[in-house]
Amino acid sequence: MTINRQWLINANPRGRALTIEDFKYHEETLQALTSDEVRVKTTTLGFDPSQKGQMENVSGYASGNNVGDLMVGRGIGEVIESSHPRFPVGSIVTGPLGWQEYASVKPRLLELIEDEDIAPSAYLGPLGSTGLTAYFGLLRVGQPEPGDEVVISGAAGGVGSITGQIANLVGCHTTGIAGGSKKCDWLVNNVGFNHAIDYKSEHVKSRLRELVPSGINIFFDNVGGDILNDALACIAPHARVVVCGGISRYEQATLPQGPANYFNIVFRQARMEGFLLTAYSAEFAEARRRLKTWIANGDITYKEDVQEGFENIPKTLLRLFSGANFGKQILNL
Amino acid sequence: MTINRQWLINANPRGRALTIEDFKYHEETLQALTSDEVRVKTTTLGFDPSQKGQMENVSGYASGNNVGDLMVGRGIGEVIESSHPRFPVGSIVTGPLGWQEYASVKPRLLELIEDEDIAPSAYLGPLGSTGLTAYFGLLRVGQPEPGDEVVISGAAGGVGSITGQIANLVGCHTTGIAGGSKKCDWLVNNVGFNHAIDYKSEHVKSRLRELVPSGINIFFDNVGGDILNDALACIAPHARVVVCGGISRYEQATLPQGPANYFNIVFRQARMEGFLLTAYSAEFAEARRRLKTWIANGDITYKEDVQEGFENIPKTLLRLFSGANFGKQILNL
Repeated sequence: MTINRQWLINANPRGRALTIEDFKYHEETLQALTSDEVRVKTTTLGFDPSQKGQMENVSGYASGNNVGDLMVGRGIGEVIESSHPRFPVGSIVTGPLGWQEYASVKPRLLELIEDEDIAPSAYLGPLGSTGLTAYFGLLRVGQPEPGDEVVISGAAGGVGSITGQIANLVGCHTTGIAGGSKKCDWLVNNVGFNHAIDYKSEHVKSRLRELVPSGINIFFDNVGGDILNDALACIAPHARVVVCGGISRYEQATLPQGPANYFNIVFRQARMEGFLLTAYSAEFAEARRRLKTWIANGDITYKEDVQEGFENIPKTLLRLFSGANFGKQILNL
Repeated sequence: MTINRQWLINANPRGRALTIEDFKYHEETLQALTSDEVRVKTTTLGFDPSQKGQMENVSGYASGNNVGDLMVGRGIGEVIESSHPRFPVGSIVTGPLGWQEYASVKPRLLELIEDEDIAPSAYLGPLGSTGLTAYFGLLRVGQPEPGDEVVISGAAGGVGSITGQIANLVGCHTTGIAGGSKKCDWLVNNVGFNHAIDYKSEHVKSRLRELVPSGINIFFDNVGGDILNDALACIAPHARVVVCGGISRYEQATLPQGPANYFNIVFRQARMEGFLLTAYSAEFAEARRRLKTWIANGDITYKEDVQEGFENIPKTLLRLFSGANFGKQILNL
């Protein structure tokens, strides 16, 4: 009898900060596999701010999860039991494995990882929803043109850093906003951003005015709050504000103020637009093919923040909300 | 010697409510007309909330005006002196006449009014920037489709009431938000809105949920503030929020809060977009031709709030900010 260790949802964190107590340790005995499932031993989990939103179970975003349910999450693992011809024992797969050591998953939810030249964990970052969000958010919603001034908040995060690199590939000029000189140095020296603004030590609006005197053509926002407001003060005519995330809002008890400068979209004939990745699912394969090529060519680099150990899973998610992670947050079990 | 009575800008009302003291009465002696000008005796002036913005002289919106300058404003008048073949004495014209009895204007800034079946004052409303703003804001920015649920704030105003009628012509279902039962009754019984919400006596968000249970496809906002926030709470997937005006903001000393619900544009994959009418100037003639046809057919009706007397010009502009006007605000000198 094999014991499967799991983390369950212990409380709904809606309207407050997420805590360690929102998760509950659980053990179950592995049941016999049904014929339409594949058993996967999880090796790596990926973390994303939207996981808090899923726990909040608010209609309209992601389908929610209830207290007592297994915490959802995407991961990488190895097939250890299977009668499915496409996923033989020993295959490396990615899919919605959840926060547990062993996942029993329907094959249609899994993807086989066959690349030899890219680390499997890339499927939790640049080749997963992180990279796809950057790709479609920038290219479809932002509609960049060569020479555009692109400003990205949360630039050192998984989505932000890839967005900046795709923007550079399109011929844009890039400015990243991130917290701390370590992240800012990395953006400029390793990722290829033209400029970086440290929101913890610099006045964001003044620095935007200095670095982007012609105005922002695309603001790709992962943060919301004051940074969104500062950026709206600095948009160029016909700017596109891509609303991708709002991590500054995710832990607030009541809805914070919206951007007081929103009316600049009238003066600047600009648009603010939100998107959900699922809208582009028909094009994921093509986007991933391109992202793979860029990674293989060295056109896109990425950074992982790797934590270790099953017991550290809940506190690893919390790192995202304090900004402690530097790069795409993953954990090896 | 003819005396020309004028109203000048006496103070910049930036960041506060407009008052009667922001204007100064002035008399000048009419000078001889130069050869490249036409002299027009003003008969009617049109009023628009953007006139306060012009006085504030903030870069990026309309080119501003300074304290001591003649107050700008569009009007209708009769040519009383001219050597220009296209504008003989007796012609009825519209153009930027300003707040004065006699305007000396370059012909290229004037338009001849030759229609026999439409009152000249229509050129200050449905055939002027009011109608054009409704036309391009709804059709180009909003991109309505038949069956769309269109909600309009400031619906009983000049822009709002025409926007609703164009939306009906396109096959949309229309809900207007206005202040007071008189305006709401007019919207439903005379203008053809399907529903009206009285924001002074009704809870806007609850009523939107009742009247538009499938969600708002297009929100055309003339007001901003709480009403924009309520509408954002009720948008449908892929909604378009057309930011046309924000009269609730125009008199605030400090920038009021932005819409706390802006993040719904992510959940709903929606867009908020601003526009300036000048972007569409190449298409004004065609738009006006269509608006004329609709007015002539009775497909578009409009209401004027007519004040009288040169001495009442400043206080007539103030009516817009208290919501006292019912229909397009004009004044006959």
